[in-house]
Amino acid sequence: MLRRDFLKLSALSVLSASSSAFSAPDAKAVSGRKPNFIHILADDMGWGDIACFGHSKVKTPYLDKMAREGISFTNFYVNGPSCSPSRVGIVTGQFPASYRVWGGLSGNPEVNILNDMIDYLPTDAPNMMKIFNDNGYKIGHFGKWHLGHTPDAPPPSEYGIDQYRRRQDFGHSGGPVWTPQDWQHLRERVDGWDDDDWQPYSTELIIDEGVRFIEEFKDEPFCLNLWFTDPHAQLNPTLGQMEEYKEYNPDAPEGDNFKSAEAVYYSVITNMDKQIGRILNKIKRLGLDNDTIITFTSDNGPEYICIGIGEAAHSGVGTPGPFRGQKHTLYDGGIRTPLIVRWAGHTPKGIVDDTTLMAGSDLLPTMCEIAEIDLPQEITEKFDGIDVSQAWFGTPIEERKPVMWEIRGMANGDYSARSPALAIRWKQWKLLVNQDSSRLELYDILSDTLEVNNVADKYPDIASSLSQQLLAWSNSNPWTKAPLANVGQGPKEYPWPE
Amino acid sequence: MLRRDFLKLSALSVLSASSSAFSAPDAKAVSGRKPNFIHILADDMGWGDIACFGHSKVKTPYLDKMAREGISFTNFYVNGPSCSPSRVGIVTGQFPASYRVWGGLSGNPEVNILNDMIDYLPTDAPNMMKIFNDNGYKIGHFGKWHLGHTPDAPPPSEYGIDQYRRRQDFGHSGGPVWTPQDWQHLRERVDGWDDDDWQPYSTELIIDEGVRFIEEFKDEPFCLNLWFTDPHAQLNPTLGQMEEYKEYNPDAPEGDNFKSAEAVYYSVITNMDKQIGRILNKIKRLGLDNDTIITFTSDNGPEYICIGIGEAAHSGVGTPGPFRGQKHTLYDGGIRTPLIVRWAGHTPKGIVDDTTLMAGSDLLPTMCEIAEIDLPQEITEKFDGIDVSQAWFGTPIEERKPVMWEIRGMANGDYSARSPALAIRWKQWKLLVNQDSSRLELYDILSDTLEVNNVADKYPDIASSLSQQLLAWSNSNPWTKAPLANVGQGPKEYPWPE
Repeated sequence: MLRRDFLKLSALSVLSASSSAFSAPDAKAVSGRKPNFIHILADDMGWGDIACFGHSKVKTPYLDKMAREGISFTNFYVNGPSCSPSRVGIVTGQFPASYRVWGGLSGNPEVNILNDMIDYLPTDAPNMMKIFNDNGYKIGHFGKWHLGHTPDAPPPSEYGIDQYRRRQDFGHSGGPVWTPQDWQHLRERVDGWDDDDWQPYSTELIIDEGVRFIEEFKDEPFCLNLWFTDPHAQLNPTLGQMEEYKEYNPDAPEGDNFKSAEAVYYSVITNMDKQIGRILNKIKRLGLDNDTIITFTSDNGPEYICIGIGEAAHSGVGTPGPFRGQKHTLYDGGIRTPLIVRWAGHTPKGIVDDTTLMAGSDLLPTMCEIAEIDLPQEITEKFDGIDVSQAWFGTPIEERKPVMWEIRGMANGDYSARSPALAIRWKQWKLLVNQDSSRLELYDILSDTLEVNNVADKYPDIASSLSQQLLAWSNSNPWTKAPLANVGQGPKEYPWPE
Repeated sequence: MLRRDFLKLSALSVLSASSSAFSAPDAKAVSGRKPNFIHILADDMGWGDIACFGHSKVKTPYLDKMAREGISFTNFYVNGPSCSPSRVGIVTGQFPASYRVWGGLSGNPEVNILNDMIDYLPTDAPNMMKIFNDNGYKIGHFGKWHLGHTPDAPPPSEYGIDQYRRRQDFGHSGGPVWTPQDWQHLRERVDGWDDDDWQPYSTELIIDEGVRFIEEFKDEPFCLNLWFTDPHAQLNPTLGQMEEYKEYNPDAPEGDNFKSAEAVYYSVITNMDKQIGRILNKIKRLGLDNDTIITFTSDNGPEYICIGIGEAAHSGVGTPGPFRGQKHTLYDGGIRTPLIVRWAGHTPKGIVDDTTLMAGSDLLPTMCEIAEIDLPQEITEKFDGIDVSQAWFGTPIEERKPVMWEIRGMANGDYSARSPALAIRWKQWKLLVNQDSSRLELYDILSDTLEVNNVADKYPDIASSLSQQLLAWSNSNPWTKAPLANVGQGPKEYPWPE
């Protein structure tokens, strides 16, 4: 039943992509100037958390419009199931295991050592911002960072960024930060302010900076990261922001400040969408529509439940869509996220590409190709990602080299969501296995979207070939093989009563 | 890996049960008097939420002791994945679908009509309390009720109960209730009181009543229900109760009243355990150990996340153990719960029975058999449950008639936890299917504890036979076939981007 529906949808979409009246241009910049890039990154937003990816309740009119005016990818993966590895994949074009990053980098070096992780992304790693900066781009980075913030971590400026601003806490310390005064001005002009917390306005502040940056550099090519902290727990929308979802707020007893999780979560998504609309409108008004490639994605699947963060039950409302698991798992719920790419006059309009297997590490090679940036071989040979611009321009990619993941010890949530530590996706196959070869799972993911029917016994050759490739790759990575390997990713046995 | 471990454990346990030096008595009362029954029921506590069922963090010394002194069943199911159907199964010996109960009964008749449910359990239904009352037992019921509380619902006294007391809210209104004065006396004598909420002391109050009842009726046979509201969300333990788990309370900023979900949940379980200890000790001190059968179970699997209840993220800490899903699902995480039976001198000591498939609806026939209560045929022919006393006395039951479930529309949580609407368990098989025969899933649950490997194609005869039996049973039930059927239990398709 599931298989039939999905194949039907997939077939239709592929058909519409390949038979489209749209004529794909060469995968190069077509105007005289190099295109701008704006990368918008949501935090902990699931594949299923926006309307244009199928959510039946939440309202995201601007993202829906962006999808109608651009191309959406349903088969897009980030390179890690949590913040830091996912971001490392995006900015380096490499799998984050290359740098021993498989969980959120801590500001405390001792914690990073304990978890066998580095303290921060090395500045000599291939790096999207530096590469574009070296090639004449102005670079802005506003919002979350999470590529390292130990006391000795380099400021973003050492990664080729011209302008940046970050919040001081939530792991984004160092460098220019927003102060309470920054949101004091919002308090003065926004109706319904009922909380002096920064949360309801974090995305607005990030977009404020983005708009200012675009206005300042509108006459030269720019590369702009707008990395939100929404909808990461904890959230605290204003009553005004929640107005649209007041139906989900049950009649609470007087004096009870209870807000329903749905009203909290959906209103934050909708506010995020509204702020994205400001960027879309600004680009249009400045006449930059045909010169600016805007991408939207999320850094990983939805949070399971923020048991480590007070009063954040709302995080349980986030949905991975039809996939198994959430943040911190290598099942698709943890690593498959929406990708929308919009470049007016270049990307086809309203196409959904279900065919092309794509990864966060493809962004940098693809952007370089489009911007006609020639990279030295010592950089390109490091890339795990590939140029997928052909798909961005409407011609799906039928086959490509595999995408691989390695995590260690970060499992949470229920047992059915805890995946093995290693995963590989190739064609329709997804294989998961532990470093000691235990718990091998093979899924035909096109027919078994939920990853529940292990067909390793049915296709032993595929299972053997993929697991060998995956383990060889894992062994080539610079793990110190600390004893925490596979914690939580082991066999799913539960200590049975004795 | 999973299979091997589980089979190994299972084999060992069966061996120890059958080769035990313990000599099983006849499944009848062995002393001159009829035995007392105390049924302790936790609320929304998962299979994996107590130490003696494998939890590695939570401390439950009294339940562990009860398990060491009695027999534990790992293969025990309640008859519904939420409060009301589960309780109907226990008190009637019937599957709750017989009465159109598949979700929490509302106090609002309009809501019950909307959900195609009855308002309350009919007083002429077979009923544990009335049957025992009619046979010379004193009956006490203290704590949660949830068998119907519309304005016209009969008070518990009409179900054969001599003494009862309930909380006024949380769906337990009507009849004698606890008042604020009841816990005022606790406030005066309990150290660390820091909240005038009733929650930290609900279980203590229920046990207070139980202790008083036992003292009052210690010289005659009694049947006592102690039905907690712990660990149902929302929880609010005192700092004193949380002392044992302070390691889970991170250093919160001053003035921040954040309590970690682990500290909240584990401390409530431990406090519940401590209160159960008071009952065990009271029975012992009164010399009733050999005359009293104490059973402990939960009404359904753990809550997924209480997005409908403010500040209840702690509910996400509850665990179904190694099973898939939670409350409101027919996967085992929703309906398999711990069962411990202790009758000093009668039940074997410290045995774990992994063999016997047992259900909540078996409690009443089993209790009647042990108490030598002969029931008229018009009652016994209604029973879906069977007498399983043989297993309580140490001889596992290898085969029995199937256990069946029907729910409608109550799915929540992520997609991997949303089950079809109907389920049947027979031998090692568990089959799930919708009323329209869609989405048929067959699991060999002994080797596939997590219910992920659908073997319907591999065993078509088993699948066909069980689904026919299940659908025939469903069609024999008094459903009105309202259109809400299968809402949320349909095929797992997600509205894919178009």
